[in-house]
Amino acid sequence: MRTQVAIIGAGPAGLFLGHLLHRVGIDVVILERRTRAYVEGRVRAGVLERGTVALMRRLGLDERMTREGLVHAGTKLAYDGDIFRIDLADLTGGASVMVYGQQEVMRDLFEAAAMRELPIVFEAEDVVIEGIESDGPTVHYRTDGVAHRVDCTFIAGCDGFHGVSRAAIPPDRLATFERVYPFGWLGILADVPPVDHELIYANHAHGFALASMRSARRSRYYIQCGLDERIEDWPDDRFWDELALRLGPEAAAALVRGPSFEKSIAPLRSFVTEPMRYGQLFLAGDAAHIVPPTGAKGMNLAVSDVIILAEALMSYFAEGDRSGIDHYSERALARVWKAERFSWWFTGLTHRFPEMDAFARKMQLAELAYMRGSRAAQTVLAENYVGLPLS
Amino acid sequence: MRTQVAIIGAGPAGLFLGHLLHRVGIDVVILERRTRAYVEGRVRAGVLERGTVALMRRLGLDERMTREGLVHAGTKLAYDGDIFRIDLADLTGGASVMVYGQQEVMRDLFEAAAMRELPIVFEAEDVVIEGIESDGPTVHYRTDGVAHRVDCTFIAGCDGFHGVSRAAIPPDRLATFERVYPFGWLGILADVPPVDHELIYANHAHGFALASMRSARRSRYYIQCGLDERIEDWPDDRFWDELALRLGPEAAAALVRGPSFEKSIAPLRSFVTEPMRYGQLFLAGDAAHIVPPTGAKGMNLAVSDVIILAEALMSYFAEGDRSGIDHYSERALARVWKAERFSWWFTGLTHRFPEMDAFARKMQLAELAYMRGSRAAQTVLAENYVGLPLS
Repeated sequence: MRTQVAIIGAGPAGLFLGHLLHRVGIDVVILERRTRAYVEGRVRAGVLERGTVALMRRLGLDERMTREGLVHAGTKLAYDGDIFRIDLADLTGGASVMVYGQQEVMRDLFEAAAMRELPIVFEAEDVVIEGIESDGPTVHYRTDGVAHRVDCTFIAGCDGFHGVSRAAIPPDRLATFERVYPFGWLGILADVPPVDHELIYANHAHGFALASMRSARRSRYYIQCGLDERIEDWPDDRFWDELALRLGPEAAAALVRGPSFEKSIAPLRSFVTEPMRYGQLFLAGDAAHIVPPTGAKGMNLAVSDVIILAEALMSYFAEGDRSGIDHYSERALARVWKAERFSWWFTGLTHRFPEMDAFARKMQLAELAYMRGSRAAQTVLAENYVGLPLS
Repeated sequence: MRTQVAIIGAGPAGLFLGHLLHRVGIDVVILERRTRAYVEGRVRAGVLERGTVALMRRLGLDERMTREGLVHAGTKLAYDGDIFRIDLADLTGGASVMVYGQQEVMRDLFEAAAMRELPIVFEAEDVVIEGIESDGPTVHYRTDGVAHRVDCTFIAGCDGFHGVSRAAIPPDRLATFERVYPFGWLGILADVPPVDHELIYANHAHGFALASMRSARRSRYYIQCGLDERIEDWPDDRFWDELALRLGPEAAAALVRGPSFEKSIAPLRSFVTEPMRYGQLFLAGDAAHIVPPTGAKGMNLAVSDVIILAEALMSYFAEGDRSGIDHYSERALARVWKAERFSWWFTGLTHRFPEMDAFARKMQLAELAYMRGSRAAQTVLAENYVGLPLS
């Protein structure tokens, strides 16, 4: 098979990139190791930045999102028994975010891919990338034991943190930056009305909590937990009690409890690889960088990567202009590092760290008290939360 | 001797408080362990917040400051060979800071004290505070070996971090919060024109540097150094070379070198005591809290403490209203913690920490790059730099 761009991975990065290129007539093929049902079923974050919402619209994928998504023009911070609101719209000149689960985005992307004949190969196993330092790289893979080969001009590595793409780059050509956090997030899904129509990020002496939702009838709640804790240690009653305590009395009074139907513990990590291009291979999304989930930047960062990458590839194929691909890494990383900073800072502001002394705890509370009274500090949160400009 | 308020310490906190109370007819006596020459000669910071400038005016102490002080409507940040300006005035609706050394402030305070017959006892030794849990506390001290006693209604502990006032409070009634930083500031004074008419705060891979000044002909420069380094290790040439490197090429090109006439290494510490009142004793300034010098909040924080304390004491003596004195600690601490946060954050943003890994370094650079492009982030710096409101 021959194509212009071989895309490894059908997560958000790969699918958005595929749609962006396919619609302007660039030949792509997307290779996905898993089944569609598996990819679509993965529970992930659910807050879309304005830029992600705009891309859904631009790609004509917004019909269901517009109907079912929840526009949030504000978000809330709770600490020390107190709660205050960040008016995102007022602070950013009208911007907002959209609560619409990554699973929903994936479903829309897959359905449109089928309709628009965007080629996706599922269960593509044993993917091997070759020749990325040449003009004609190849991708080898197997389906049902049968070997296939794709000859292409570029490869887009959208296969996540554990994928083969980043591993195809000689390790001595990559610099990596990492922070592993000494706690996890215990998350549940439950079919109960959300405690608030907006998200509540809570800093409690016991640790972080987040009240989120998927819809007006489905709640998504998280509490910070130790990395050594097991899901069995957290029966629903214990979870609800701890969540109510951490959200504070005002929110707790409105909390509706019910049986959880999903419960999992996820670790938190910051990770960045530089550069995001090596030869004819571009990395995008989790293949190049991971953020802790605080502030929900993961998928949104994948989206900004592929918008920049798609522009670069379009200029190359339409006009033979190499400047976009030559500056892809630098341009993408400038935004990546700012989102990494925001996610790291927001995690640091709201979580309990094992090594935190009394002074460090006071710094968290002083920053929250300062934000409560400072329009400038609230604007810093707001402009990052709705998404910084592409460059 | 009888007085209404015995003030321990003739540093900025004690002298400003003395002037504020004396002018409305409240009896005070200020007890100072050192000589006037010693106190006046101590080299300290030299950036006055707008509130400190306003207090100098209110007290009629501004004649020389207005003539000799340098109004700064902006400040600069340098990193990675780049430099950008924070337009303090534009970002804060016209506020600015005043570069006027603490030594100059002290001289003005002492001269006016003499003119206005504000009683100050110098070389008051062996100060002992008694009865702060009663309505009639006393202060004992000696001059030239002769014992004296002051009976008073209140005691203001303005005698700094190592003073007797904080030590007079039962330790189990105080909570203390502390952070000792793993580096110091090596500072010089030199009679050369400043490299820039505004301050430059520099984050370099080698560590922090600060280009400051006392006047148009006297420069004050600092570089971060190890706590184990000695002044003898830093002859002027080495200092100038390192300063030029850290300030970056643009500033280095304008740097005028010359012999230093003062050179010292100071440690950096964050420290807060809660509460700031015990019985009839109030703590103010360094007796209650220390900030690292980054951002020059030390003297300014002493000033905001004593403005709040003076208001409280005036309400008490004029109207018998206790609410001010009962809320002094809470009110002062609300502002103290925000200034502590700012000083800690600004130190963390600009210094090299021994334990800093590559990710932490990237977070510094990402925050500086973000600030460079964000009006909101610049406003956060600016509004803290010129001084947050009293409450």
